[in-house]
Amino acid sequence: VSTARPLVLHPQRLFPAEPSARAVATELYETVRALPIVSPHGHTEARWFADDVAFSDPVALLVAPDHYLTRMLYSQGVALEELGVAPLDGGAVADPRRAWRTFASHYHLFRATPSGLWFDTVLATVFGIDVRLDAGTADDLYDRIAESLTTAAMRPRAVLERFDIEFLATTEGALDDLGAHARLAADGYGGRIVTTFRPDDVVDPDRPGFAPRLERLGELTGTDTTRWAGYLDALRLRRADFRRHGAVATDHGHPSARTADLAPGVCQRLLDGARRSTLDAEEREQFRGQLLVEMARMSLDDGLVMQLHPGARRNHNPQVFARFGPDRGADIPGPTEYTVALGPLLAAVGNDTRLRLVLFTLDESTYSRELAPLAGHYPAVVLGPPWWFLDSVEAMLRYRRAVTETAGFANTAGFNDDTRALLSIPARHDMARRVDCAYLAELVTTHRLEIDDAHELALELAGGLARRTYGLAGGAAHR
Amino acid sequence: VSTARPLVLHPQRLFPAEPSARAVATELYETVRALPIVSPHGHTEARWFADDVAFSDPVALLVAPDHYLTRMLYSQGVALEELGVAPLDGGAVADPRRAWRTFASHYHLFRATPSGLWFDTVLATVFGIDVRLDAGTADDLYDRIAESLTTAAMRPRAVLERFDIEFLATTEGALDDLGAHARLAADGYGGRIVTTFRPDDVVDPDRPGFAPRLERLGELTGTDTTRWAGYLDALRLRRADFRRHGAVATDHGHPSARTADLAPGVCQRLLDGARRSTLDAEEREQFRGQLLVEMARMSLDDGLVMQLHPGARRNHNPQVFARFGPDRGADIPGPTEYTVALGPLLAAVGNDTRLRLVLFTLDESTYSRELAPLAGHYPAVVLGPPWWFLDSVEAMLRYRRAVTETAGFANTAGFNDDTRALLSIPARHDMARRVDCAYLAELVTTHRLEIDDAHELALELAGGLARRTYGLAGGAAHR
Amino acid sequence: VSTARPLVLHPQRLFPAEPSARAVATELYETVRALPIVSPHGHTEARWFADDVAFSDPVALLVAPDHYLTRMLYSQGVALEELGVAPLDGGAVADPRRAWRTFASHYHLFRATPSGLWFDTVLATVFGIDVRLDAGTADDLYDRIAESLTTAAMRPRAVLERFDIEFLATTEGALDDLGAHARLAADGYGGRIVTTFRPDDVVDPDRPGFAPRLERLGELTGTDTTRWAGYLDALRLRRADFRRHGAVATDHGHPSARTADLAPGVCQRLLDGARRSTLDAEEREQFRGQLLVEMARMSLDDGLVMQLHPGARRNHNPQVFARFGPDRGADIPGPTEYTVALGPLLAAVGNDTRLRLVLFTLDESTYSRELAPLAGHYPAVVLGPPWWFLDSVEAMLRYRRAVTETAGFANTAGFNDDTRALLSIPARHDMARRVDCAYLAELVTTHRLEIDDAHELALELAGGLARRTYGLAGGAAHR
Repeated sequence: VSTARPLVLHPQRLFPAEPSARAVATELYETVRALPIVSPHGHTEARWFADDVAFSDPVALLVAPDHYLTRMLYSQGVALEELGVAPLDGGAVADPRRAWRTFASHYHLFRATPSGLWFDTVLATVFGIDVRLDAGTADDLYDRIAESLTTAAMRPRAVLERFDIEFLATTEGALDDLGAHARLAADGYGGRIVTTFRPDDVVDPDRPGFAPRLERLGELTGTDTTRWAGYLDALRLRRADFRRHGAVATDHGHPSARTADLAPGVCQRLLDGARRSTLDAEEREQFRGQLLVEMARMSLDDGLVMQLHPGARRNHNPQVFARFGPDRGADIPGPTEYTVALGPLLAAVGNDTRLRLVLFTLDESTYSRELAPLAGHYPAVVLGPPWWFLDSVEAMLRYRRAVTETAGFANTAGFNDDTRALLSIPARHDMARRVDCAYLAELVTTHRLEIDDAHELALELAGGLARRTYGLAGGAAHR
Repeated sequence: VSTARPLVLHPQRLFPAEPSARAVATELYETVRALPIVSPHGHTEARWFADDVAFSDPVALLVAPDHYLTRMLYSQGVALEELGVAPLDGGAVADPRRAWRTFASHYHLFRATPSGLWFDTVLATVFGIDVRLDAGTADDLYDRIAESLTTAAMRPRAVLERFDIEFLATTEGALDDLGAHARLAADGYGGRIVTTFRPDDVVDPDRPGFAPRLERLGELTGTDTTRWAGYLDALRLRRADFRRHGAVATDHGHPSARTADLAPGVCQRLLDGARRSTLDAEEREQFRGQLLVEMARMSLDDGLVMQLHPGARRNHNPQVFARFGPDRGADIPGPTEYTVALGPLLAAVGNDTRLRLVLFTLDESTYSRELAPLAGHYPAVVLGPPWWFLDSVEAMLRYRRAVTETAGFANTAGFNDDTRALLSIPARHDMARRVDCAYLAELVTTHRLEIDDAHELALELAGGLARRTYGLAGGAAHR
Repeated sequence: VSTARPLVLHPQRLFPAEPSARAVATELYETVRALPIVSPHGHTEARWFADDVAFSDPVALLVAPDHYLTRMLYSQGVALEELGVAPLDGGAVADPRRAWRTFASHYHLFRATPSGLWFDTVLATVFGIDVRLDAGTADDLYDRIAESLTTAAMRPRAVLERFDIEFLATTEGALDDLGAHARLAADGYGGRIVTTFRPDDVVDPDRPGFAPRLERLGELTGTDTTRWAGYLDALRLRRADFRRHGAVATDHGHPSARTADLAPGVCQRLLDGARRSTLDAEEREQFRGQLLVEMARMSLDDGLVMQLHPGARRNHNPQVFARFGPDRGADIPGPTEYTVALGPLLAAVGNDTRLRLVLFTLDESTYSRELAPLAGHYPAVVLGPPWWFLDSVEAMLRYRRAVTETAGFANTAGFNDDTRALLSIPARHDMARRVDCAYLAELVTTHRLEIDDAHELALELAGGLARRTYGLAGGAAHR
């Protein structure tokens, strides 16, 4: 491959160019670079670790399931099938090597994107590759990665050790049997790989199949989910099951941050309507909003941290959804309001120091306007890290600059990688640590922060805050 | 106190780290550092200066009334009573020394926040303290500050001299008797400490006790405030009273920027409804909006600058409001629209060069989208400085970068400290001057501004624009 | 003019102050500085080039028609008549020299604005002026510019050569006879100076005279524009006429991004209502939205690139509109939503790789929230450059930092100057090239981009992306 260009990860990448700030960032980063990884929110699959079998091929592992990657090529006219994404109807799909070649020949699209930074980091640090991926190097890199995947060192549990991942949360739906987690616990991974309770499927009447799932929820828990009280009991019982499988948190992916705190009679009527699909859009919002308040109340009792991820218009592209299903890069954010929307929840439980409600956003205009003011006042509110489309160098810096002055550091939740791309986890944490050190260096060199405080905060941002927020060992008490 | 860490204010704090920009910022700052302070909008109390008695203790002066400070500790689980904030029901409250210790032991929460920068500046420059506040130094600092407060040099009028505050506006409600200002005038402070007309209590039907206050307004002014014309006369008369007590401006804290210009018959019906509490939410918005247009028209006649502060959802936390009342850090901003909302007002008086309407915001997305375009077109519109949650290093820089290119400097109002924390006034003006010099240095070193122009603008930003906007001595004519 | 201050354009203006980044920016800029100009969207007038007669005077050329300039002085109390803007009623207007003096004596208002940078660049590079414009130099500069305008070198076609403008699109309404373009084609300018199809006047029922214009459209095309099918045929025929005059694109200036895809019967009823002025606000939005989808479908057939410019509240100032007409600096942006609004259009044609829909915005909060996610997914969506109020140094940098990490470079459209100020075209392209090189230098010096990639991208940003987006010679295939 005579045209191959070298792949070099600069040791001071993402640090400021100005020499004094770069020196401070470097000094801070050295103290956090090798810390163990705490990953309290993500989308890897428990069965990978429970089964611990080798990953099949480079595309199935690194490309096809990563909608950050496939959406970019799709936007430039590449069919998803060409990238190894199988249509639901069983239609043709490119074989892995061909898909990899297509990916490689479009890899320049990721210049200066976080996806590119992560992917390069994976290539270099996980597979020891020292040339850049392009059409010319595609086959060679495919072979080297495929070869590597056959080794014991690349089995999921080995990866966990190699990456020094101390704590990893997966996310399961409310009807999941948690069998993979049970097997993990039997193998001694209990408390290290844990589940997260994600009840969207049984609280969102907009999801197809809502009524049958409520029935199933009743069967699983021995409750009458046609009655409001029984429905809440069912959710409470499932939360207890999830806690027995290590869960420290719940997660809620709602279209909006709307909450509601209605009388039980109204709730029963909304439940009836939800089961019969007779609710209008406003009532469906009320129903979801009521459930958020119920979840918050249950958190007071069982201690699960509550994570709210609002604002994505899911499945915005009907053709892609019909052909490939959800999570294919076709979710698009929209404006999201928090101040009024969260009013009922915060009036009910926002002053309770037992609750930790971690708020995420896809709408950066809310950082200084709503989220930092809310987190800087309500005992229950914690700001989640920049999420999804905002999980990038520039957006992370904008986040720190926008929220710190009002909410401080202590009202933020530390970093979440939020990924299904297992091999990118250390790359993502490394990026976050670098950007946080760059931010702290800015503060130090403009004399807004003393260097001793910066050292303490670098440790907090690299793990302490995440431990504290999610109540993990090694985290000081939240307050 | 062997563990005490030194408190050092770096002479070049808040300037860029890059040496050439730092040198320019330093050069500019030297010319504005010691200029007298012009404070045309704030919330100190006139009676402090009228009575001129010593402040009672460090907590009552520096902590308990400053909701920027107390909200941060509250967000981390500290009860407001523990910080010396008295509940309305007369319940127990920590004594000053205990409250100070609680504050000190949480002071690390303010790292890299403007509150922390201001507080450190007050400690160092007002009280000559050279160690950082923490649990270990709390008692010693308490004693030193308490001792200092007993001296003549710390009496309010002496502070005014010491800080070289040339002009200070307080803010009083429309029913205030202005007695403190009358005493100040008698003592020779007329024209130096002045009032500001804040009619929210008598123009916002959402405020409890609206109807009785309208009655009281009628008694005060000898008008029939049940009639639209009489009500407007009452407001006009009170504005004249305020002007006699030095007022140069009015101030309006509305939930939105909504304005309206309705027929007198409609206005009478809205007034009737407001008095009887029969208006719906839309009508209450119309009522407030109509009053803004009336206020603008009165400003054409009496020359009072009109300040509009929209966008806060006041008393968002019902528990805190019930227990402690308003202004306890529980106001949360929300999205704020100006372009359509201000349409009726601007159609009526926006082209009149006699009017100065100073617009503030808590929604940064409006800077480039609405506020700079409005200020860069309408003769009447002036952009106020970054306000409240946005009164910080990063937010001030974002403001300059977002508005200058469309509105220029001349359509901005200069700095307002907007504070009830008397001792922080010089710290706040110093921060603003430093940030403005940092911004100008950025422009100079990227060759977007000549150094001679930067010098002229540094003076403008440090006082000239404020004098001009509020029609004070030393300000060139507005246009 | 003894007080004249030198006018100096620093060769490294707009580059970062930090030396390593400045060096990279300089290196990149040297490769793009002298590239020919591609201007696929703008508002110069075809008749200037068709007639090729000299411009009359400095004010008529440089000041009066440029609402970026006149609005700033108007905001500071200068009457538009004083700047040479003629009122519609034929009222008095300042003579050119007097208007120029007024402009010059207020020129300090443009310090640190893009208008100031462009104007200085025009003075220095087009007219060879080496002193700054102010009251003292006004007359001398007027004379020098007026003298220059009489020379052959300043005739429109000569300017085109001198500026190395390789491609220039003007914009004409749907009823334009395109006579100027026909003359240009006859003189050999076909394919170099081309028209753009702007149908707003015949698709927006809010515009006065809508019904008569539809009638005229029917006459022009020999169709029955009272029938939905005939109306669409008329638009299709006019698009074909425009293509025959070189058009490569359509342009749509709508109040919102709202789209609709309704049944033909509904469309006919909306058309009937539009002609009779009986539609309510919601129906007028539907009508405009339906037309956007029709335009997109026609683009699939005829290949015209579709440009959507939503979000301005046109003619916000009724007095200015009544006295001077549209385009006088009184258009004010407002919040703009894209995700839901574009749903119907994208569902219909968003996956079609033949379509290029270039989206513009005046609402920066949409960059990371909606526009970059849309462009990074839909094959048809391309992000236009920062537009109008956002066409400035800081706003261009914010744009790159906000969209690149999600959409990459390849989903952006390159630079548009979008101006009616002919002489400022090279100044605007130069500013964009400098800012893009500054941004790339940031990426290189923080090790997010290799220098070889930066060189390639600098060329793309300076022309390649524009050629590709608009299908011009020298642009690689879009995908």
